[in-house]
Order: sequence, then structure tokens, then C-alpha cells
Amino acid sequence: MQYVKIKDAIVEQIESGMLSPRQKLPAERKLAESFDTTRVTLREALSLLEAEGRIYREDRRGWFISPEPLRYDPTQTLNFTNMAIAQNRQPRTDLLSAKGILTTKQAAQLLELQAFSDIYRVDRVRYLEERPVVFVTNFIRPEKFAGLLDLDLAGASLTDIYREKYGVVYAKVKYRVTTTSLLGDVAQALRATSGTPAMMVERINYNQHGELIDCDIEYWRHDAISIESIAQLER
Amino acid sequence: MQYVKIKDAIVEQIESGMLSPRQKLPAERKLAESFDTTRVTLREALSLLEAEGRIYREDRRGWFISPEPLRYDPTQTLNFTNMAIAQNRQPRTDLLSAKGILTTKQAAQLLELQAFSDIYRVDRVRYLEERPVVFVTNFIRPEKFAGLLDLDLAGASLTDIYREKYGVVYAKVKYRVTTTSLLGDVAQALRATSGTPAMMVERINYNQHGELIDCDIEYWRHDAISIESIAQLER
Repeated sequence: MQYVKIKDAIVEQIESGMLSPRQKLPAERKLAESFDTTRVTLREALSLLEAEGRIYREDRRGWFISPEPLRYDPTQTLNFTNMAIAQNRQPRTDLLSAKGILTTKQAAQLLELQAFSDIYRVDRVRYLEERPVVFVTNFIRPEKFAGLLDLDLAGASLTDIYREKYGVVYAKVKYRVTTTSLLGDVAQALRATSGTPAMMVERINYNQHGELIDCDIEYWRHDAISIESIAQLER
Repeated sequence: MQYVKIKDAIVEQIESGMLSPRQKLPAERKLAESFDTTRVTLREALSLLEAEGRIYREDRRGWFISPEPLRYDPTQTLNFTNMAIAQNRQPRTDLLSAKGILTTKQAAQLLELQAFSDIYRVDRVRYLEERPVVFVTNFIRPEKFAGLLDLDLAGASLTDIYREKYGVVYAKVKYRVTTTSLLGDVAQALRATSGTPAMMVERINYNQHGELIDCDIEYWRHDAISIESIAQLER
């Protein structure tokens, strides 16, 4: 099929280095001309490239070549900033909000709480090289973290605050990775079109005494993450 | 937005049990009528539901409610059949082909081989309740498995054959999970429309002596899999 050939031609240009990460693609009209094809066929090729994580769209700004995904090992670290720096990336985190709320249904299930329990909710967007890549919501059981919302949550990682102010460290994590799509506020915060494919990582975190302390729900632009790990198998 | 409301209404019907796994949805025309909306808006709602893994399409057969995803723990087992049975599912595997080939570029990289090395390639499709859910290709270094292609690969799992005929067990696995889309033969084998979102799992497998023995590349219908695990964190 013609659109698969066009897709392969663009992949080859990316792999040979003729197209660089974060480079903007020419306008669709020009691309269609240069491949001697129709806009419809070109769009099918672009949408395959997007599904494969080779290119991404920013709302109203056009198509760009995707950077390398961040390698994310759920068994190694919980700290986005350190993980990004170790991979020579430039991380930044924006705190969107931090507040006390009555638990949502999803948070109640994950945190094993009764309906209408009090919890803290912290929403953040994380960037790599100024591109928003993940929307993270933490739901936190408040009983271990009195006064948390009065601290400078924009200035330090939650991991650091837990450890330094409360003597709490993450010791065990249960995680689940599924695919979904970006919608509404989350899509907007990631500058993505509603419906863009996403990888969802849900984590439930336990402290050094085996107690459930918080959970986080992460919506990743799907081309920005690659889950990688090494396992010694149980026999 | 109207299509998000329609999506939410269908999700609610799934969660309340009014729509059951594997049930066929009514024709798009009828659905559009019942939600008092246009075909265009309805399709936007359906495509969100597909992205979230709530419904799936089979080529020329229509839309169906997705069954629960299979919980897949890359650190626990490598055996699809046992994993499915443990979760009360009905697994089946079809052997598509098993042959000796010259290595592909991708397999050479994963298996650390020179160009034009001989390898074995085994292609299989795996089913849950007769629905095709994953297309698996194994690339195998032949030096440890003389005569492998003469054995009954349709009748036993590779894991069992490795262990029983060659005394080889998987001891360590490096895995990588990314998102992609289904194309060509793979899409067809999974009865999916070309371009359907997919989760790709690549695994590189080592034996009990730390030697690289094979790799496998799995294309999962994205709604059929949920990667879940528990990690004790390193400090």
C-alpha cells in the first residue's frame, strides 16, 4: 500500500539522521507534493508514524520528529528528574495544583479507602527539553504526612520531601501499564490533540514498613516512554 | 463535548454489567439513533472507546465489548498458556511457521549477531477464548538447539522443548514495552484493521549460564494486555 511506502521512506530518513529529533516536518501540502501523493494518503502515512511513536503533533503547531523515548525502569527508581538527567535529558516539572479533597472513586480503590475519605491530590506536568511528556496525579493518604500541603511542593520532589520531612521512603511498588488516550485537561496540558494515544502507568506505593502511602497515575505521551527492565526469573 | 458524554454513557453500561465482554454492539446507524446523534459524533465516541481498550473492532464483523485484559507480569513467567489458565482464560496457540533464515536487521541487533548469520524464526498467534490477541515471533540462536525445527513445535511450548530436549531454561530476561500499531500480515492474523493501536513487547532471553539464547517480539492487541508487577525497590 502506498501509504506504508511513504511511512517507510520517512522512517529511513529519521534512521539515517536526515531528520533530527524535534525537527518540524514541512506542511502537509508540501509533503504530499514531494511524495507525489494525495493529502489523504499522506495523512494515513503520518497517522501510522504517530502510532509508531516516530512523529508527534502539537496542537496548532504541526508535526515534529519524536525525540528518543525516556527509558523508564519501574524497578529502579521513582524519581523522574534523576532518571532524565542520567539519560542526558533536560527535565522540568510544573506543579499545577496541590490540595485536600474527598477521595475519587479511582483513588479510593487504589488506596483502599472508604468513600468520602480525605486525601491529598497533587497534579504535575513533567517536561523533557521543554516538551510536556507526562501528566502525573498523586493521591496521598494524609495520615502519614501532616502539613504536607504547607510545604514547597514546587521546589522539591515528593520523594525527597517524604524522606527528609517525614522519614518515609518508597520500598515497594505495584505497577500497571496499559494504553489509553489523552482527553480534556490532560491532553491540553500536554499540548496534544484530544484522542492522542497514551501510555498509562498506575503505581501504588508502600513505605519501608509495608504500609500503603500513595498512588500515582501517569499519562505519558506514548512516544515519550519506553518501559525497560531486566528480570531474574523465578523458577 | 458530546462524544465524550456518549463514551461515558457506554462505559457506564459496561461497568454496570449491562454490556458483557465479547458482546457485539448494535450497528453504528442504530447506535447513532439511540444516542440521538450523528454518525460522525458516534464514530468519535467509538474511537475513544477503542483507544481506551473498552471496545474492539474485528475486520468486517463490527464492534465488540473487550474482555478483561490478560495480566502479564514479565518477572514471573514466560509461559502464555499457564498464565492464561491461572487467570481462568482459555488459551490456544497456532503455529504459523518455523524455519531457518538469514537474520533480519532487527534480530541481528537483539541477538548480537553478524549480518547474514543463520537463525531460526518461529511465528505464532495466540488466542484467548478464540479471539486472536498476540502475534509472537521468536528469533532463536541455532547453536544451542540443533534439530529444533524437526521437533513438534505446534504440540508443545518452546519453554518446555528447551527444557526437556536441550536442558535449557530461561533465567534472565531483558524486556521493553512500547506502543505501536498493527500492520499488514500481523494485523490480518489478529483480525484487526491496519493501523489499530498495539502494545509491543520485545524480550531478550538468557539461559541459566547467562548466555543469550533467543528473543521474541510480541504484538498485542492493546486492549488484551495489562502489564502488572510488584517491585522491591533498590535503595
